[in-house]
Order: sequence, then C-alpha cells, then structure tokens
Amino acid sequence: MATQRAGAASELLKPLEVAPWSRTPGAPILDHPYGLPSPREANVIRRSARAWPLPGAGSSMTPLADLYGTITPNGLFYERHHGGVPDIDADQHRLAIHGFVREPKLFSVDDLLRLPAESHIYFIECSGNTGSEWHGPSGQPVQLTHGLLSCCEWTGVRLSTLLDEVGGLAAPHGKPGGTWVLAEGADAAAMTRSLPLERILERALVVYAQNGERLRPENGYPLRLIVPGFEGNTSVKWLRRLKFVDAPLQTREETSRYTSLLANGTARQFAFEMDAKSVITKPSPGQRLAKPGYYPITGLAWSGRGAIRKVEVSVDGGATWQQARLDGPVRDRALTRFEADWHWPGAPAVILSRATDSTGYLQPTREALIAARGLNSQYHYNAIQQWRVEASGEVRNA
Amino acid sequence: MATQRAGAASELLKPLEVAPWSRTPGAPILDHPYGLPSPREANVIRRSARAWPLPGAGSSMTPLADLYGTITPNGLFYERHHGGVPDIDADQHRLAIHGFVREPKLFSVDDLLRLPAESHIYFIECSGNTGSEWHGPSGQPVQLTHGLLSCCEWTGVRLSTLLDEVGGLAAPHGKPGGTWVLAEGADAAAMTRSLPLERILERALVVYAQNGERLRPENGYPLRLIVPGFEGNTSVKWLRRLKFVDAPLQTREETSRYTSLLANGTARQFAFEMDAKSVITKPSPGQRLAKPGYYPITGLAWSGRGAIRKVEVSVDGGATWQQARLDGPVRDRALTRFEADWHWPGAPAVILSRATDSTGYLQPTREALIAARGLNSQYHYNAIQQWRVEASGEVRNA
Repeated sequence: MATQRAGAASELLKPLEVAPWSRTPGAPILDHPYGLPSPREANVIRRSARAWPLPGAGSSMTPLADLYGTITPNGLFYERHHGGVPDIDADQHRLAIHGFVREPKLFSVDDLLRLPAESHIYFIECSGNTGSEWHGPSGQPVQLTHGLLSCCEWTGVRLSTLLDEVGGLAAPHGKPGGTWVLAEGADAAAMTRSLPLERILERALVVYAQNGERLRPENGYPLRLIVPGFEGNTSVKWLRRLKFVDAPLQTREETSRYTSLLANGTARQFAFEMDAKSVITKPSPGQRLAKPGYYPITGLAWSGRGAIRKVEVSVDGGATWQQARLDGPVRDRALTRFEADWHWPGAPAVILSRATDSTGYLQPTREALIAARGLNSQYHYNAIQQWRVEASGEVRNA
Repeated sequence: MATQRAGAASELLKPLEVAPWSRTPGAPILDHPYGLPSPREANVIRRSARAWPLPGAGSSMTPLADLYGTITPNGLFYERHHGGVPDIDADQHRLAIHGFVREPKLFSVDDLLRLPAESHIYFIECSGNTGSEWHGPSGQPVQLTHGLLSCCEWTGVRLSTLLDEVGGLAAPHGKPGGTWVLAEGADAAAMTRSLPLERILERALVVYAQNGERLRPENGYPLRLIVPGFEGNTSVKWLRRLKFVDAPLQTREETSRYTSLLANGTARQFAFEMDAKSVITKPSPGQRLAKPGYYPITGLAWSGRGAIRKVEVSVDGGATWQQARLDGPVRDRALTRFEADWHWPGAPAVILSRATDSTGYLQPTREALIAARGLNSQYHYNAIQQWRVEASGEVRNA
C-alpha cells in the first residue's frame, strides 16, 4: 500500500519550513466559549434537496461525503420538520403520560433528569431517505440522496422505567392487537404516531441529550422519543404526550403519510423498521480521483433490525464482490463505518456496496426492491446504490 | 423508585394545555445550516479557572456538570494552548515523517485522507487536571476542578500504518532505550514531546476528524496526534513533525514542564499514563437538592491504562461503599458513565466515588496519593474527590 504521493525525501534534508502561522502567537483562549468549526470548512453544512411549499415544513440533509467515523456532530444532524422548530421553554414544558396506566402523571424536564438514565449510540433515518432513486439515478450527490441519516449518543430514560413511574399498565388493556402507545409532539403540526408497545418497551428512550449536551432545538429540545431502528418520524420530537391505548389511533401521519402504496393497490402500513442499507460516501458524486492509484472505498451501513454483520464492495458493477473491513466495535442499530482497499487503474468503474445484517437479510438490488414494492412508494428505499467513476476520475450518480 | 414529584393525575382529566409554542409554526428549516445549542442553554460553555499572564497561553474547561453520557460535543471540548490557536491553511500544511526511517516523506492532509482510516472513542485529560485539589478542597465546581477532560470519536491513520508508508525503521535505531518518536506542533510554541515508540505504535493515531467532522481549530486543525491514555499534551495538536529517534530529546515540555518534583527531591519524568480516576458530576458543587427524595448519583470514570472495571460510591464520607452501575459498553481508554441510586434523607452527607481499572488499580485517597508523591507536584492528581451535601441541599467542594 506504499504510495508515491507524499513529498520527496530530498525536501527533508534541509530544516522544515516554518509556516507563517507558526511565527506568531495564535488566537487567545476563550475567544469561543462554545466552539465552532474552522471557517475553512464552511462548505460542510446541511443542505436541502428541494424548496418546500410551506415555511416550517421541510428537511435538511447531513453532508455524509464530508464526514468521518460514525458520530454525526450535533450541528450537522439532519432535520425533518412538519411545522417548524418551536421555541420551547424547558422549565414550562411538560410530558403527560396517561391512558391505560395506573397513575397518570405530568413530568417536568427536571423530573426526568432525576430518573435513572442511560446512553446509547443509535442512528436515525427518515423513511423518505433515498426516495430520489426510485425511478433511477437522480444525479444527486450522497448528501442529497442519503443525507436524511444521522447518528448520535442519546441520553435519557428508558420507556419501561417511565411506565413503572406511572404504576404500570392498568386494565383494560391488551386487546388482541396488544397495547400501543401514542407519542405526540408539541410542535405546531402536533406530530403524532402510534407505536406497538411490546416491540419498543425495553429499547425506546425519552431523551434530553445528544452527544453529551442537551438536545438541539431542531432535534426536539427539550425532550424527544428515540425508537431505535424505527423510521425517523416515530422518534417524536418536542415530546409532550405518551398515551397508552389498545390499538393504533390511525393518525394523519399513519394514514395519509408514512404508508406505502403497493403495486396491487393495497397499502403497507406500520412498516416501522428501517431495513439494512449501505452507501459509499467516498469516492462519491461530485468528487474527483486526481490520478490512478490507491483509494480506500469507505461508507456507512446500518440496519433497523440489529447489527451489521457484513458489507461487500464491488468495483465492477456487481460482477464480483470483496468483503469490506468494519470499523468496530459494531453497535446494534448504529451506523457502521466500512472500508475496502481499491487501486483505481484510471479506467471507468462502477462502485457499489451491499450490507448484510444480523438477521441474515441482504440489502436488495433496485430491481428486487421494485419487484416487491412497486413504484408507488415514497418510503423505505434501501436498494444497493451505485456510483460511476469516469476515466477522468469524476464520480457521478448515473 | 416511584416518586411524588410529577404532576397530579387530576390535571390529566381535562385536555392537555396547548402551549403558545404549539399554536403557530416554528422557525423554518435551514435557518442554521450549521446548528447551535438552544439559546436557553447559553450557560453551558467552556470556562477558565484563572487569568493567564500571556495571551494565547491558557486553558478552558469542559462543563462536566451540565453534560450527559460520555461524548463531549466538539464545541465544549477542553482547551490547553501554549501559543494560541494558529490559523492553518490545511491545503498548505505538511506533516514530515523522518529520522530513523527508510523513506522520509512529507504528507499533505489529502495524502493522509487517502490512507486506511479507523475511528475510536478515547478520552483526553490534561496532566494538570484537578491540580487545584493538591492542598485540600478548592471550593471550585467540577467544571473547574475536573474539566480539563473530554472524550470524542477520533478518526485518522494508525501510527504503524504511517511508519509502513515511510518504509519502516532504518538502522541505526533501537539503542538500549529503544526507539522514540518526537512529535512537534505547528503552533507558535512548537509544542514538542518525545514518546516511547513501542508503547504507542499500534494505538496512537494521526487524526483529522473528531465526532465525525474535521478537527476544530482549537483541537489541532488540520492534524493532531492522539496517544490514548497518555497525558493530554502528548496528543500534539497542529502536528507537523514525527521524527523517529533513539532516545527522548529532553524538550522544554519534558524537563521544565510536565515532570513532577517528588518529596525526596528527584523528578518523576515521562509519567505518561493518566491513572484511574472518577468524579461525581451530579450532584456536584453549585447544585442544590430541592427536597429529600431519590437522586441518582452520576459521574465519569476513566483510566489511561485500560478499561474501567468497577466504580463504587459512598454517601457517608467513605465509611461504606455501594457498587455503581456502569453505562455500557465500557470502552478502553474512554470515559465511562456511572450511576448509583440514592435517597437523600435531607441530612448532611459526604458523597464520593472511586474507580478500579482493568489492571486492578484502585483510585487512591488524597492521603495515599500525597504519601507517594509529596506536595510539590502540579500534575497527575487522581485522588478520590468528595462533595459535601448540606442539610439545605446545597452541594459544596469543602
């Protein structure tokens, strides 16, 4: 893997050059009690794929091609809002927990801060992520095709702990369909979803912190639900209500939205888990390989059903595959960074990745996905993504 | 653990109040292409414990009492600079790797970005952290006693990979003292440390990213060394040189500084590893327990020699101890969050924590530490820290 890229040894026979920034003291401490990225990285920002018709309803996407590792810095976490970002007074905000519980209660944020806490690294992916590719390559860079995807360390209280705090479930509950919990946000859109309790009770968290600090306003400050592995909209932001009920409530967000119309005319509803998926973030569209030589192929893989077991990479359009290295430890329902060695010979190439998760599920081809779901779906697009590398080194989504 | 804190159930018999922020659309998307914390959290910032005599030489500390989990957000990572923060042009910056190597080379940042990468979560602690407590309780809050401590996911190239890139070690090398590597920064102070190669070769990284994004200016943009578990100053920022040598070079920072004068008049030099340590971050000085009841005791534990095995908490000044829960997975040379249950009866209490690491080492009492090191040391203070809870609920460092 030795390269010819680095500077010549002869330059090292004389003393190292002293750059201008080494000659005088730099900026003093505490210019930034809350620090910001280098102005030289000002291009690494969230971007929106399109203009949205209403103020407050829209999304912004994480710049995956410019990020490293698996943690998304809080300032670059993707956004999807239905009614804008409310300016909530955390001291006044309350979470109501009621419905089929023994002792319904209102909780302040301080109440939650005094309960046993836990922290976990989980990804969140919008169910609309990569919807741009249903009808073929969109030409967009990876930020705009896959950037409704981020990953944080979340800190908060487990849903089962909160259920204990309200005395547990009260009769009547548990109709044949089981117990569900309605989560409602305090945004102007009152984002509301029904969730099957048994499947989330021991894993879902009501969180107040992300990557060590209190939630950012656009991520639900002061409280949000985290439902690991489920489509992003179920991790309801600005959480104000958890109501235990005996059936899903068929809210607007589970009838008119977030369902998928299949080819046979029926709708796929409550498809919560995000299926295994992967994407190459480097090289990716908009980048250019300067000259032939060694390039590591790196990207992200994730599954809403568990951990990533294997990622394979192809540089010949899927004819042959090599197994990528996974940057461990591999975490359940978190982003996993993969890397594979590649010597680009300077000829056109088609590079792609495919993930296998701990259930044995293999990320499908676009053809297989369409055969199963048809072309009416907006949501849950998780097909293998390919990028074209031209002879010039230019990388394209084509 | 059921509480009486939450709101009365009777409030839940009527419809939930709709807060003013739920009545109108919130802030539109993309107001902040790079997001910031809520203005309501403006008090959560880095702070300096004292005024420093020269501009550019100083430190700022992480607000540990207001943080959660184990990741430090990049904007709150502690700072310690000897010559200010240089404004480095990443395109012009070079890392020289030379000395006893077969093919000395200059590397650009882009060269490093094209080498195999890995990501790891590691803490960094300044060797001067908690130096305020050598002569007894300082009265300061935990931010100013323990805040020269932070933890990130770092991404970069392993030192052993870089040594391969320059053809490996060349003769002559390996005198009886072994091979050392000199790391030099491009700041105005040219921060320079000698490091024992064998002990760091497979673990040290040259990194370009923290928590997913490029390094912050104050954290070494565009390149820094990370030596996991070693005192913070060895993780040289703004890295411009790695020189392989046959003995430590006795630089300013390992003779006049970063050595400890023992009681017998000899100096303890090259005490690289930060020994196991822990501290309670909540409740901690400056906070107040509002009334008797359940309070989880939470804090951080870490060791430069491996993983944390056990944390014990006492609420009676160390007479009796209970084992705390560790929020897993516990990572090698990373911060570990612990939590223990406590029902505060409303009476004065003295709360403290002690950590045991994977080598079996137990964090010492202040008396034991002073017996071993004397009172002339500025560095490597890792004694058990106690906080006093008054009958009023006020928490003090006394």
